[in-house]
Amino acid sequence: MSIAEYMKKVGQQARVASATAARATTLKKNNALLYTAELLDQNRITLTSENNRDLERGQANGLTDAMLDRLTLTPKRIDSMIEGLHQVAALADPIGTISGMSYRPSGIQVGKMTVPLGVIGIIYESRPNVTIEAASLCLKSGNATILRGGSEAIHSNQALASYIRQGLIKAELSEHVIQVVETTDREAVGHLITMPEYVDVIVPRGGKGLIERISRDARVPVIKHLDGICHTYIDAAADMDKAIRIAVNAKTQRYGVCNTMETLLVHEAIARTVLPALADKYAQFDVELRGCDKTAEIIQCKAAQEEDWSTEYLAPILSIRVVEDMEQAIEHINHYGSHHTDVIVTENYTLAREFLAAVDSSSVMVNASSRFADGFEYGLGAEIGISTDKIHARGPVGLEGLTSQKFIVFGDGHIRQ
Amino acid sequence: MSIAEYMKKVGQQARVASATAARATTLKKNNALLYTAELLDQNRITLTSENNRDLERGQANGLTDAMLDRLTLTPKRIDSMIEGLHQVAALADPIGTISGMSYRPSGIQVGKMTVPLGVIGIIYESRPNVTIEAASLCLKSGNATILRGGSEAIHSNQALASYIRQGLIKAELSEHVIQVVETTDREAVGHLITMPEYVDVIVPRGGKGLIERISRDARVPVIKHLDGICHTYIDAAADMDKAIRIAVNAKTQRYGVCNTMETLLVHEAIARTVLPALADKYAQFDVELRGCDKTAEIIQCKAAQEEDWSTEYLAPILSIRVVEDMEQAIEHINHYGSHHTDVIVTENYTLAREFLAAVDSSSVMVNASSRFADGFEYGLGAEIGISTDKIHARGPVGLEGLTSQKFIVFGDGHIRQ
Repeated sequence: MSIAEYMKKVGQQARVASATAARATTLKKNNALLYTAELLDQNRITLTSENNRDLERGQANGLTDAMLDRLTLTPKRIDSMIEGLHQVAALADPIGTISGMSYRPSGIQVGKMTVPLGVIGIIYESRPNVTIEAASLCLKSGNATILRGGSEAIHSNQALASYIRQGLIKAELSEHVIQVVETTDREAVGHLITMPEYVDVIVPRGGKGLIERISRDARVPVIKHLDGICHTYIDAAADMDKAIRIAVNAKTQRYGVCNTMETLLVHEAIARTVLPALADKYAQFDVELRGCDKTAEIIQCKAAQEEDWSTEYLAPILSIRVVEDMEQAIEHINHYGSHHTDVIVTENYTLAREFLAAVDSSSVMVNASSRFADGFEYGLGAEIGISTDKIHARGPVGLEGLTSQKFIVFGDGHIRQ
Repeated sequence: MSIAEYMKKVGQQARVASATAARATTLKKNNALLYTAELLDQNRITLTSENNRDLERGQANGLTDAMLDRLTLTPKRIDSMIEGLHQVAALADPIGTISGMSYRPSGIQVGKMTVPLGVIGIIYESRPNVTIEAASLCLKSGNATILRGGSEAIHSNQALASYIRQGLIKAELSEHVIQVVETTDREAVGHLITMPEYVDVIVPRGGKGLIERISRDARVPVIKHLDGICHTYIDAAADMDKAIRIAVNAKTQRYGVCNTMETLLVHEAIARTVLPALADKYAQFDVELRGCDKTAEIIQCKAAQEEDWSTEYLAPILSIRVVEDMEQAIEHINHYGSHHTDVIVTENYTLAREFLAAVDSSSVMVNASSRFADGFEYGLGAEIGISTDKIHARGPVGLEGLTSQKFIVFGDGHIRQ
């Protein structure tokens, strides 16, 4: 069978299975999740040895330490996959929720019912735990799923796939509800993202290169974000303690994630107070500072270049710009930012409201660290990714983002006049 | 200036204007709508004479009577454009609505704010009243709009565009918030649908050919439906009076619209009762019947061919199939239908619930005519189109479908632990 034929078969199987997934009871879906958790627990040794095969090949192929780390299924990571399955089983089932049923003057009663999207394609890189995370969210939201992991994790992913398959079958669901693509050929991705007849949406998880390629070539909608160039704007009316606490946390709490601050904007009226205090703190964390001309007059820093303003460092580096007022900060954010998460620190009521309205990002915050932009922190219970698009889901995407709705109408023989 | 340069300029202007539209007050947006209504009323003679130029050229170019009818701005149609502007001004402003602000264990307060999509491109055919309908909905929802009407309506559309422009300026909004493309060159459409940097979503209104072309070539999300192949399934447990009333209304109340029934499915247990009664009614309306073999055993009809089940007649023609049970009806609908609007007529509680859950359409109804699938009938206040896609808006699309949301977070110096 050619790769094209194989992917078509996988797609057709998913499309057929999606009808059964959509109608599966909450109990069956939860059972499949809990059975999979049990199987993971019972097969720790096999799973670890399959993971070791990937790791050995990865070392031989010269993967970086960071990549090998992401690839490793430590006992703790297996624990958290099991815990994650239990958490998703405990979440409320969004499917079939009926809301807003109200009577119209014609006498019909109209509202909305939450329904699955259908078939979701997940394309991801080295972390094999994504297999379990993504599969569990897609199943709970009544979708069929096609998972396409990186070739470096193929043995780990196939092992995980077999536990999922057994879990589905034991819960009396079709094994095609969750399929893990068996080929490591990159051609498979090309087919997966161009089969709108079988796939309703693609969620890519991985580096910017992967996501750019997928977005460019996809013929299916993609839920994604490319960059996380998050800003903190410290206003003239900021509380100094809050400003420093937030600006330090937003940069240093974790460096390699998308909701970390990459650019700090400071109102010129308080730059001479706040920047020296912050520079001391950042020095303790060895954060490299790259400032505009005005910043360089106040603290020691490298000179920021134009490209710094649109760079996601994912590293202990911070660009700093002194702005004349909030409007300039907003212009900077909407121009250079990635519409991910942006923060104002201010005690001024009017400016806070204007900032909330004017900043065109998927999360906008007042007096809180951008690091909170996360499905768990927002109370979504889980997160399959963060979207910076405006169509469909925006911001952290939990179960709700994996659903659609349909209108339902109750009548009693009503006809249109 | 080449067409490419012109469309790029229009796109850039729209992108800049979208920031001001997003922040425009409700009062200013309403004023622009009401000023435009005033100008329409004051310029009826000019508008009619511009419309006559289009009609004369249309006649010379051999447009069909149906096309000329759609193109004509009668006094009544001008009245309803004016009335429509007043209605949209009276609708609640969706933008800036904050909902669900709730505290999380971390202490932050999280919720959602409704925001505009940004720039909406509308591509439509001969009906010039769409210019006003679409522009008013996009403006009220805080979007910038680029309207591309058919070349046959260019003079009418340019006249309408000038009243909109004056209305915007008088309301102190940028005239680029609503732009009507001035060229009739078809190349302009090609540019409009492939500028994701300037256009956030395309709403095509027109025939299936237009919408298929746009969907195939677009690099921007498209809110659309292709077909309206709507079904009515008369169950064995149907109330006979309701079944006949609904099946007659769904087919005959209007023929050329997307929520008209094209296929009737009848449970075999009651086919011998209901079909003869219905055939009498349809005969009064001169509806041509095309039935399956079992139907032909009961009533006089032509033999339905395979392609009948997937044809949107938009005419007094109805295909009829006798099914063994509801499952077969659901399979037929999900296989041959267009996921637009489908109806069950039954008094059986369990079957009604199963039908609602299993039919994968943008509107699913119990004991009501499919003709109710409409933004006004659903209480959306207006409708820019109907979507059968699952991503973003589904079913009739009103103001809400032209918006997105962002997460907003209130803190008090909160940092992530």
